[in-house]
Amino acid sequence: MAYKTEDLWQVFETVRERGVRVHCLTNSVAQNFTANVMLACNIVPSMTSSHDEIPIFTAGVDGLLINLGTLDGKRRHGIRLALDVAVERSIPVVLDPVKVDRSSIRLEFAQDILKQNISILKANSAELDSLKLCVGAQTLVARTGVEDFVLGKDEAWLVRNGHPFMDKVTAVGCALGGVLAGFAAVEPDKELAVLAGLAIYGVCGELAAANANGPGSFAPAFIDSIYGLNADQFGQHVKLDIIKNKSGELAG
Amino acid sequence: MAYKTEDLWQVFETVRERGVRVHCLTNSVAQNFTANVMLACNIVPSMTSSHDEIPIFTAGVDGLLINLGTLDGKRRHGIRLALDVAVERSIPVVLDPVKVDRSSIRLEFAQDILKQNISILKANSAELDSLKLCVGAQTLVARTGVEDFVLGKDEAWLVRNGHPFMDKVTAVGCALGGVLAGFAAVEPDKELAVLAGLAIYGVCGELAAANANGPGSFAPAFIDSIYGLNADQFGQHVKLDIIKNKSGELAG
Amino acid sequence: MAYKTEDLWQVFETVRERGVRVHCLTNSVAQNFTANVMLACNIVPSMTSSHDEIPIFTAGVDGLLINLGTLDGKRRHGIRLALDVAVERSIPVVLDPVKVDRSSIRLEFAQDILKQNISILKANSAELDSLKLCVGAQTLVARTGVEDFVLGKDEAWLVRNGHPFMDKVTAVGCALGGVLAGFAAVEPDKELAVLAGLAIYGVCGELAAANANGPGSFAPAFIDSIYGLNADQFGQHVKLDIIKNKSGELAG
Repeated sequence: MAYKTEDLWQVFETVRERGVRVHCLTNSVAQNFTANVMLACNIVPSMTSSHDEIPIFTAGVDGLLINLGTLDGKRRHGIRLALDVAVERSIPVVLDPVKVDRSSIRLEFAQDILKQNISILKANSAELDSLKLCVGAQTLVARTGVEDFVLGKDEAWLVRNGHPFMDKVTAVGCALGGVLAGFAAVEPDKELAVLAGLAIYGVCGELAAANANGPGSFAPAFIDSIYGLNADQFGQHVKLDIIKNKSGELAG
Repeated sequence: MAYKTEDLWQVFETVRERGVRVHCLTNSVAQNFTANVMLACNIVPSMTSSHDEIPIFTAGVDGLLINLGTLDGKRRHGIRLALDVAVERSIPVVLDPVKVDRSSIRLEFAQDILKQNISILKANSAELDSLKLCVGAQTLVARTGVEDFVLGKDEAWLVRNGHPFMDKVTAVGCALGGVLAGFAAVEPDKELAVLAGLAIYGVCGELAAANANGPGSFAPAFIDSIYGLNADQFGQHVKLDIIKNKSGELAG
Repeated sequence: MAYKTEDLWQVFETVRERGVRVHCLTNSVAQNFTANVMLACNIVPSMTSSHDEIPIFTAGVDGLLINLGTLDGKRRHGIRLALDVAVERSIPVVLDPVKVDRSSIRLEFAQDILKQNISILKANSAELDSLKLCVGAQTLVARTGVEDFVLGKDEAWLVRNGHPFMDKVTAVGCALGGVLAGFAAVEPDKELAVLAGLAIYGVCGELAAANANGPGSFAPAFIDSIYGLNADQFGQHVKLDIIKNKSGELAG
């Protein structure tokens, strides 16, 4: 299906109007920035990783983010508790397998939970190389990088937005996982939800960089851009391309 | 007692001049922003939640903040260790029962520690509804919201300051708990200390929003406003009202 | 040896060009800001404190930061795991003994690990007073403060740069530890690496303060300054003095 700019924008509008809740099991480095990016989208985050509380909180949210940064045994167990509830409730689950290529423990854990119903796998190229044999048909893959690549049902897509400052601020990538979970919570077509999230994120990165003196001032400007983005700005900046060859072999 | 603007301002001046220490047992999402807001007031935070270290640090501070966000069994035990020292030393203790209305574990724990000598309970409307039957005479209640409500000894008060961006930045509410603990550390009249803290917080929210492009740039501007606030700005912006009917039944 | 401004600058240039990895076992309050300061220098941080993962990550980095803020037994054990790998691999190790003067547990632990091969001890005056008898010849001492003092092999040094806002933003001091580890990873002369790190940090503090309205806006401006600093700015602002009397007895 060929999505239009208006389709992508509508997903964001729906998130803004409706307001959704996402529980985030994410690393301690990323928690604060992730929460602020999500709030700017009108996605309300909760972040407890207490085993007592995970089932209670996961029972009340519209989506779940699982991020494998700074992972220990306690959090691995907490992730399983949350997944059980999320799968039973059929809410979207986003997996961000941070640095899975550098830690065999994370790799084994990610491979194992991919057998469950992970809706969306957001990973960079190195992480995805480690995992791609484990990704089932139920999981939509979004590969992030200078250009973001999404392998959809009938087409593959490139989102050509973004800015290098996005790699110079910690947690920008992690926060995207929370945004995708919120977008997928309002849009049952995961492919559309993910493309909308990636495109809005990339466009806001460009707009923020234009107002920044470096990665320090980029971070608050990025949150401002997400909060203030309007349909015209989005339409002018979004660069979404269809890749004919769905196999994922990309030129360039 | 009818407090004047000058009385409120004097509390802040005393904190700035004297410099106080507050130990914060708070959630990991809020730690960094809380510390920076407190430092901007000249309140020096410590934040260890190691059981070994909590008694040592609590023995050397002028106030204690207990925040129930991202609560687990280990932190519950740590909170009890800190409370023991704080009660023995008679330093002010602020309780922020974050999302107690959404977690029965937090609710039971909050109800239990409210039997101890909690000086100030800072909560939003939903949190307070869950707890109000457990609040004893020793605890001053500050209900935060679009308007902040304080149930004092002879009067009830409304602080009509603030800005919607304060709800769009994570930890703004949590950091207020640290500020109130610092204010109560220098001002034995808890009612005055809490009103001063709420009013200065709300005024700085307004001043910061006037210089912000969204919630991203609001966060650093808010810290700048607290750091730079002067008596004239405060006097021009503060909106403190007495409610005649002390029962707390508020019109509007 | 008398270092010149160009020598100091060259260390930073090398870090920027080469890009190094540093593993940080640091406190939860400081993680996010530390990561962003390091990224602005082109030092890639990793921060897991999971016992499973520490050996794997430490095996792949160029330097190690050990920060004793918010220290508990679990992290103490993790620090030992990391130190074992770092010592075996002979990568530089920076110790920041945060508030060691206020906690006997931290003090004993710091004294103990100073027997191992700690390359650089970065501490303020109070922390250093507690530890100075335990510092062996293998450890270079950098005492931070209004003026930073480095006790080198043949000379002692004062770095007279910096700004008071650096003490009003949490984690500015902690993040310096990560920077020093990265600088020492590219420059085998520890004395030069540390002087370069301190001088660049202090100069960027001054430049950032000139663009800030308070400590809130100082934080992003500081990161921007580090990211954008050029040799001319550095040369114009750096204030590095040799102290003749190497004994460390400083006037003033």
